[in-house]
Amino acid sequence: MHLREAITTMARQARDASRRLAELSAPQKSLCLRAMANALDERAVDLLAANQTDLDAAAQAGLSPALLDRLRLDRRRIAAMTRGLREISDLPDPVGRILDNRIRPNGLRLQKVSTPIGVIVVIYESRPNVTADAAGLCFKSGNATLLRGGKEALHSNRLITEILTEAGRRRVPSFPEHAIQLVPTTDRDAIPILLSLTEYIDLCMPRGGEGLIRAVTDCSKVPVIKHYKGVCHVYVDRAADLKMAERIVLNAKCQRPGVCNAMETLLLDRPIAAPFLVHLAPALAALSVEIRADIEASQLLAPPNAPPYPKLRTATEQDWYTEYNDLILNLRVVDTVAAAIAHVTQYGSAHSDAIVTSDEPTAQQFLARVDSAAVYWNASTRFTDGAEFGMGAEIGISTDKIGARGPMGLEELTSYKWIGFGTGQVRT
Amino acid sequence: MHLREAITTMARQARDASRRLAELSAPQKSLCLRAMANALDERAVDLLAANQTDLDAAAQAGLSPALLDRLRLDRRRIAAMTRGLREISDLPDPVGRILDNRIRPNGLRLQKVSTPIGVIVVIYESRPNVTADAAGLCFKSGNATLLRGGKEALHSNRLITEILTEAGRRRVPSFPEHAIQLVPTTDRDAIPILLSLTEYIDLCMPRGGEGLIRAVTDCSKVPVIKHYKGVCHVYVDRAADLKMAERIVLNAKCQRPGVCNAMETLLLDRPIAAPFLVHLAPALAALSVEIRADIEASQLLAPPNAPPYPKLRTATEQDWYTEYNDLILNLRVVDTVAAAIAHVTQYGSAHSDAIVTSDEPTAQQFLARVDSAAVYWNASTRFTDGAEFGMGAEIGISTDKIGARGPMGLEELTSYKWIGFGTGQVRT
Repeated sequence: MHLREAITTMARQARDASRRLAELSAPQKSLCLRAMANALDERAVDLLAANQTDLDAAAQAGLSPALLDRLRLDRRRIAAMTRGLREISDLPDPVGRILDNRIRPNGLRLQKVSTPIGVIVVIYESRPNVTADAAGLCFKSGNATLLRGGKEALHSNRLITEILTEAGRRRVPSFPEHAIQLVPTTDRDAIPILLSLTEYIDLCMPRGGEGLIRAVTDCSKVPVIKHYKGVCHVYVDRAADLKMAERIVLNAKCQRPGVCNAMETLLLDRPIAAPFLVHLAPALAALSVEIRADIEASQLLAPPNAPPYPKLRTATEQDWYTEYNDLILNLRVVDTVAAAIAHVTQYGSAHSDAIVTSDEPTAQQFLARVDSAAVYWNASTRFTDGAEFGMGAEIGISTDKIGARGPMGLEELTSYKWIGFGTGQVRT
Repeated sequence: MHLREAITTMARQARDASRRLAELSAPQKSLCLRAMANALDERAVDLLAANQTDLDAAAQAGLSPALLDRLRLDRRRIAAMTRGLREISDLPDPVGRILDNRIRPNGLRLQKVSTPIGVIVVIYESRPNVTADAAGLCFKSGNATLLRGGKEALHSNRLITEILTEAGRRRVPSFPEHAIQLVPTTDRDAIPILLSLTEYIDLCMPRGGEGLIRAVTDCSKVPVIKHYKGVCHVYVDRAADLKMAERIVLNAKCQRPGVCNAMETLLLDRPIAAPFLVHLAPALAALSVEIRADIEASQLLAPPNAPPYPKLRTATEQDWYTEYNDLILNLRVVDTVAAAIAHVTQYGSAHSDAIVTSDEPTAQQFLARVDSAAVYWNASTRFTDGAEFGMGAEIGISTDKIGARGPMGLEELTSYKWIGFGTGQVRT
């Protein structure tokens, strides 16, 4: 009961703060963001100390080296946070954009105007830099934020939140005290309580592994925008420029295999499968990519009179659904673009999928029928990213259909309202 | 278990249908809609008979006259349904609109293109005409529909769905058989099962009383877009043209008191409260409006030396939160626009609120700070409506912040995806 009260108070304070936040001007918000960046710079030593406390506890608790690395702050990462806040400061204000403007026959002028969403809960894992990024993007878009980071990062996150809030208040006295709040407990029960408070909270954005996101979605009564995973595909069509296809495939798989827009599955149109693999397989082998192939592709990769592909396995049904985040590639030979579309529809995660072809009708068929957040023709899946889309920064990527879809930048953190300008109009 | 299987099969068929539906061209969809309208006309006698079965059972069950009236179909209402479908047929196709178009420095062209949402569940009460309206709007926007009407209307709804489906299939052979489905059971357990199937269903839109909508929202795992109620306000400022204000107030309260965009609460700025009521009170009395007033307004309506307002009560705290759907008006005297904004924020439902004033700064303050789906300056709240907004038709009104807000027409029944047109771009 004590926990429920504490969480409810916090959410109500966030709601109140969101109303005062909506009244800050665009220049005021930018000033606050610059002050926040400067304050993080100035307090770097304290930040490193708080982070060391987290790192020591995490090492004691036996956290893996990979997780310890995510948790770690250093001068470079602090500089990246402050640079991020300054970039957000410089971006155009996403609130108050006129999205539609129409005059009705009765003279009533209707404007559709972007507004803040209100109160946003961001749930994430152990990287403390998300705290500054998420707070900055939500603040710029006029939203109050409730941040819930991984328990390993509590000291780091608490200090970051404190520094941001103090800096905002010092710079602009009307900065609402509760605009950026860290959920002060790591009690797991806090999340379902928080996400039941529909009168105070407008949106939840979980960031992390599929398990975290499913747990959040399952318990939430407030809208959730998310992507579960990125099982992204590249389909190389019979009419593809094979040199271009090789460049795209290597980029989509290998340039940064640990991210959600990296390719997991390569689909090859039967007529080009053999000639394409002649060049592609050595390139993949040189990068130590493991291949999980269907029977037809396996035969191409292990021909009778030549050495087989070094790291080759037969793909299981489950493999087609799997996001590896690693140098592992599913490979399948398909019969025309229709079969490629069917595979993507069946096994994909509606994140990012690409076709490589020189044939426009084939491309248009793929672009129309693959219902993913981003679909590419002759480009790498790796472009699904706020900065690459020209949004300046992103808080995450959505594969949902309600609300924002694809990379979520500042504009995607807004809602809208209709304003009617009349001269006494009444309904007849 | 049998119910779960049946509902799951239906939802999976809807998902499959949504994919084929997305491939119908705009002219094909329009042809289907006209054929549906014609078929409803042709089958009017059968429809009236099916509806009579529902009416007889409902009368036997002791349904109130008001509910029996909602349930009733007659020639006029059937004609309204067919007219609605023809109008939807003539509206521009909402799918495939290019919402954004940008070329990145690397030459990658990115288009944000509107798409169907996918599978939409519509839950509503006893009016069978909603079946045709909702099916028509969802179909035109490329979405498969699962309709769940009130149990009293089962025979009517079943026949309407059957007629629409048959007409579509006869007109366009690729019309997907399961594009429009009525949930075939009135079992109450069907709804939580249906709304747990997140892999098949993209959106739920409940229409009806607050109880229905809360029950749906509480059990749903899929996104819900809705409004709970319409507690709408008109604030008459000290700088108002009082003749205009009277026209707007009478329209907002009395033109059609049973709808969600009708006014429930009138807020009067102190300096004009007395002179305004001198003219307004007799007009409200003539229309038999009951007034629930705060103490200050009560004193103005029951002066010592004159007869009191005929139907006057003191407002309770609960009254300020109440949607009457009736000729009852809450009345409160407030101290400046700030107090009006505070009242609307505290008690309102974020649906439709209006200010009447000739003072632009005051109006701008109200328009900026009242965070409702529609906010009006010198116009009636009654304009929050798809047709009045020029959307042609509406499936409902949303007070949500994620997804559509305000009246929901065809465009509001779409999502979007990003299409990247490249020439071999890879990420560096």
